[in-house]
Amino acid sequence: MKIAVVGVGLIGGSIGMAARARAHAHVCGYDARADVVEDAIALGAIDVGAPDIAGAVNDADVVFVATPVGSLAAAVAEVLRRAPERCVVSDVGSTKRVVAAAARDQRFVGGHPLAGAEGAGVGQARADMFVGATWYLTPHKGTSGVLYERLHRLLVALGAQPAAIEVDAHDRLMACVSHLPHVLANVLVTQAAALVGADGTDGGAGAVFAGGAPGPSFRDATRVAGANSAVWTDIYLANSEQILAGIDDAISELGRVRELLVAADPHQIRAWNDRARADSEHVTATSADSGGTHELRAVVPNRPGVIAEIALALGGAGVNIVDMALSPSTDNSQGVIALWVRGDEQAAQTEQLITSLGFAVVRA
Amino acid sequence: MKIAVVGVGLIGGSIGMAARARAHAHVCGYDARADVVEDAIALGAIDVGAPDIAGAVNDADVVFVATPVGSLAAAVAEVLRRAPERCVVSDVGSTKRVVAAAARDQRFVGGHPLAGAEGAGVGQARADMFVGATWYLTPHKGTSGVLYERLHRLLVALGAQPAAIEVDAHDRLMACVSHLPHVLANVLVTQAAALVGADGTDGGAGAVFAGGAPGPSFRDATRVAGANSAVWTDIYLANSEQILAGIDDAISELGRVRELLVAADPHQIRAWNDRARADSEHVTATSADSGGTHELRAVVPNRPGVIAEIALALGGAGVNIVDMALSPSTDNSQGVIALWVRGDEQAAQTEQLITSLGFAVVRA
Repeated sequence: MKIAVVGVGLIGGSIGMAARARAHAHVCGYDARADVVEDAIALGAIDVGAPDIAGAVNDADVVFVATPVGSLAAAVAEVLRRAPERCVVSDVGSTKRVVAAAARDQRFVGGHPLAGAEGAGVGQARADMFVGATWYLTPHKGTSGVLYERLHRLLVALGAQPAAIEVDAHDRLMACVSHLPHVLANVLVTQAAALVGADGTDGGAGAVFAGGAPGPSFRDATRVAGANSAVWTDIYLANSEQILAGIDDAISELGRVRELLVAADPHQIRAWNDRARADSEHVTATSADSGGTHELRAVVPNRPGVIAEIALALGGAGVNIVDMALSPSTDNSQGVIALWVRGDEQAAQTEQLITSLGFAVVRA
Repeated sequence: MKIAVVGVGLIGGSIGMAARARAHAHVCGYDARADVVEDAIALGAIDVGAPDIAGAVNDADVVFVATPVGSLAAAVAEVLRRAPERCVVSDVGSTKRVVAAAARDQRFVGGHPLAGAEGAGVGQARADMFVGATWYLTPHKGTSGVLYERLHRLLVALGAQPAAIEVDAHDRLMACVSHLPHVLANVLVTQAAALVGADGTDGGAGAVFAGGAPGPSFRDATRVAGANSAVWTDIYLANSEQILAGIDDAISELGRVRELLVAADPHQIRAWNDRARADSEHVTATSADSGGTHELRAVVPNRPGVIAEIALALGGAGVNIVDMALSPSTDNSQGVIALWVRGDEQAAQTEQLITSLGFAVVRA
């Protein structure tokens, strides 16, 4: 398999390393900075470099665009102009709407691995970066099933857990689970800094910080404060609509908490806190992995979008597709998609969801 | 040394264990629940139990009141009625104003160890609970210097780093570094739960949580969501004034971020994020421990409040008093307070601060 990586930084470099080590792929890299390409070869992140995007992608089976979010849409468009007809093109941007608008091509599937590290650059890249990580995929109505399957299987080979999600749901979700926590971290450190004062003297507040122990809740909540400005300025701009919605929700919820504290009714305060615990358990509950891995096979018409539709239905229900394989019929009019999922419950859910989409499904 | 612990739960039990193991103290415990006292003896948290507060404290050198915040003020008042004249009385409540109002006694020093665990109850108590932990002390103008010194030294023996702080500064600080992060954690999980929906299906958002990997920033920011309602209802009520101020600050800061995102100026967004990073570095910067431990001696008049004044000045400047020792003169009119601090910089600061309070100070 030939893989091209456009933008060989932390994530692009890690994709290259993982693809070489875990999928025995040949990896060609392009980066706007020639010295980065040299470093990437020296570090084993790519096999060879290319002088431009066309050279990197012209015979690729899979292309990952891993440039900064700000230049992502333009890079994806250029890749789609240069890549072969039977090549799947994906990106790794942390917001998906920006790219989705630019790429209605049947070869394109937006992507976003939930992985990373404190540092940046190919020097921090690791072949095991994606092991166990959720890797979002945002197929659209026109996405080729064959190409989606190829990408899915490659990501599984890299150690990731691909999960299909709608573009808007992804961006809303990221606003909630990543971007808003970053905003709140910034807000908290701003407040704390005002408290400590510029000279560190304010009748005692300095001590908590000078001791280096401001309590675990503050440390945890502010770990990401002031994260890499180059990366985050782009993210805030790219997903501003959903982040604004998240901020508005947070402000109105803080207003409700305000009222509770002013009313000072212990029962209401306790009920609010109990509800938060229930919410926390609800959103972080992991599905029980009982019953081993199940294989299910569905007969599907061979037209664009069908695999995307199934993947989105399962992703939306929280079903983790451990692996998938697509076998076209000899006349190419239809095919069989085999899906492996874990646990009795997820298998039953998969069966029910695919049936409700109108496709015949059997347990293998 | 005889120590009494009133309220033998997680913190009270840990104080007992630490005092027995590290300060060779005899520990007498009282708890409203007789079975808790029995458990505490069996676990080695206390030497003996007492049937009531009077029995626990009547010959104590040091008393720690470690009841829940809701009943703290009443318990402290009862202890002060029953404790001997030369006994120092402290508490471990996470807000200090409630107790301060009730206790202007020369024997009383408010306290708050920044330690704890997920669980509750004496069964979770540990002798090493306070090792390395900041332990706030809130002496008042009438606090006896001799008794403050006794408490400080005991806390150092338990492994803690005592730091004096004004009552209001403490409560404001806790609102910022602990209570508000808890509120924001609750707000975030409420938003996330709304996103996932009751049935976990919403076009993909379920997958991130079902996979158990909603990104490290969310996990960190919501780790304390819905914390123990019994404890936290009391805390929210006890410190509501400062938490409300924190909420108002957060709302107005979120409003400013909102404006930045709407304006969509990359330079302004980057500047805001850079400032947050600088704030974060400012508040979490630990003082460099270069230059070893220094001993400084100050001659001070023997009247209540002097030691508190010095401790508060140093605590306010973030100076960590590693240990202290007070030696009264033979006629008891004045005394020498010896202070050990770490690092050349903190030693110079200590010298300057004590001089500015009007006391003669020498390096030993």
